[in-house]
Amino acid sequence: MWPETIDVLLNHRSIRKFKSTPIPQPALAKIIEAAQQASTSSSMQCFTVINVSDQDKRKKLAELSGNQAYIEECPVFLVWCADLYRYEQAAKLHYEGELTSTVENFIVATVDTALAAQNAAIAAESLGYGIVYIGGIRNNPQEVSALLGLPSHVYPVFGMCMGEPDQAPLTRPRLPQQAILHENSYDQEAVESGIQQYDGTIRQYMLERSEGKLNTSWSESMAAKINHPRLHMGDFLRSKGFLQK
Amino acid sequence: MWPETIDVLLNHRSIRKFKSTPIPQPALAKIIEAAQQASTSSSMQCFTVINVSDQDKRKKLAELSGNQAYIEECPVFLVWCADLYRYEQAAKLHYEGELTSTVENFIVATVDTALAAQNAAIAAESLGYGIVYIGGIRNNPQEVSALLGLPSHVYPVFGMCMGEPDQAPLTRPRLPQQAILHENSYDQEAVESGIQQYDGTIRQYMLERSEGKLNTSWSESMAAKINHPRLHMGDFLRSKGFLQK
Repeated sequence: MWPETIDVLLNHRSIRKFKSTPIPQPALAKIIEAAQQASTSSSMQCFTVINVSDQDKRKKLAELSGNQAYIEECPVFLVWCADLYRYEQAAKLHYEGELTSTVENFIVATVDTALAAQNAAIAAESLGYGIVYIGGIRNNPQEVSALLGLPSHVYPVFGMCMGEPDQAPLTRPRLPQQAILHENSYDQEAVESGIQQYDGTIRQYMLERSEGKLNTSWSESMAAKINHPRLHMGDFLRSKGFLQK
Repeated sequence: MWPETIDVLLNHRSIRKFKSTPIPQPALAKIIEAAQQASTSSSMQCFTVINVSDQDKRKKLAELSGNQAYIEECPVFLVWCADLYRYEQAAKLHYEGELTSTVENFIVATVDTALAAQNAAIAAESLGYGIVYIGGIRNNPQEVSALLGLPSHVYPVFGMCMGEPDQAPLTRPRLPQQAILHENSYDQEAVESGIQQYDGTIRQYMLERSEGKLNTSWSESMAAKINHPRLHMGDFLRSKGFLQK
């Protein structure tokens, strides 16, 4: 018997269809409180959440993120931003000179944001809500930043739809543990055999899910993805003051 | 009444002193299974966990991460790596040519790793274990990578100590919600007043925790951090094949 929390974690599946029932304010505040309690590098807490309730902005964000209708329709849509601006404002109260924007503090801010968002996702799921992360927010990060008034040293890492699920998709099988967990050193052979095994698992899963129509292995879908690398992200981030060194 | 999972999330505090009791293998496997079920960008699952059980490697990692003894002493020490190597091996089965290593897929891999690690942290805490993230693993990432045999397109994002807590620290107060949650657009004034309010909270917390010896606000400790930016990370990551574009 595992604790309830383990069940919540293992039952995660992305939800892309929501009931219109709103999330009550106290529940959303608790979800954000849970997000804030995540680990944070040296207590820097380098993340900011924009709760987009304005319907015009929602519509615009849905378009900018690749026409994903559920961004417009879900009860709550959050944009999770990595934020070195707040940290810099705080430091400036006692420090003359500029923040050196490095790859290191880019990592710190991105990781802080992800840890907090994942706590929010789990808190929401424990309350019976569903979520989906929206990487598509990085399709047009310049326009998204302008729309949300993000200052320099802040960037949108991902969006998150949240609400009561109106669908019950299957949980998707993950890579075999041998391919992602190694003891003492990286095991390239275990990775290779893990990919092979997982290709079979995913082909089976896709066939079942599509009633025989989709016959695709994991590695095939990875190869298909390789041409969509959002090449603009480096220039965009440097324009926002990140990755200077 | 909130679900048990919310309590687990809100009770997080970093643990730096552990009992020697081992974590049973089935519990560790379940923790990793929970990690794997986290959201992942397009099912890429760009992370790898190295479980460092070898005592010599532990000792070395503790030195390389800034002489943190608990890295050597904790029952389980995991190194969480962002991994584009596995994805590339899979894609290569069907795709001629090189992976373009971009800022975008660096973000994908770093975020995938953080989401999975946070699931592991929460799973562990729900089982009564404590954890602490070790950003110090990035003090000497080249040496850490060599020690763990990490191939190119893999980098150590952070370590994680795990085990039965042998201390009961207070949870540390977080920024007021007004400073991290905004509606529809970024609110710089709320950030400023939030910093001011939080400075008072943290000064009080530090005074209480140190029995009157530490009189430091949050912004003061942020200013003190600004000189330690691990400037090597950019060059290191490029040498490992990341951030080429």
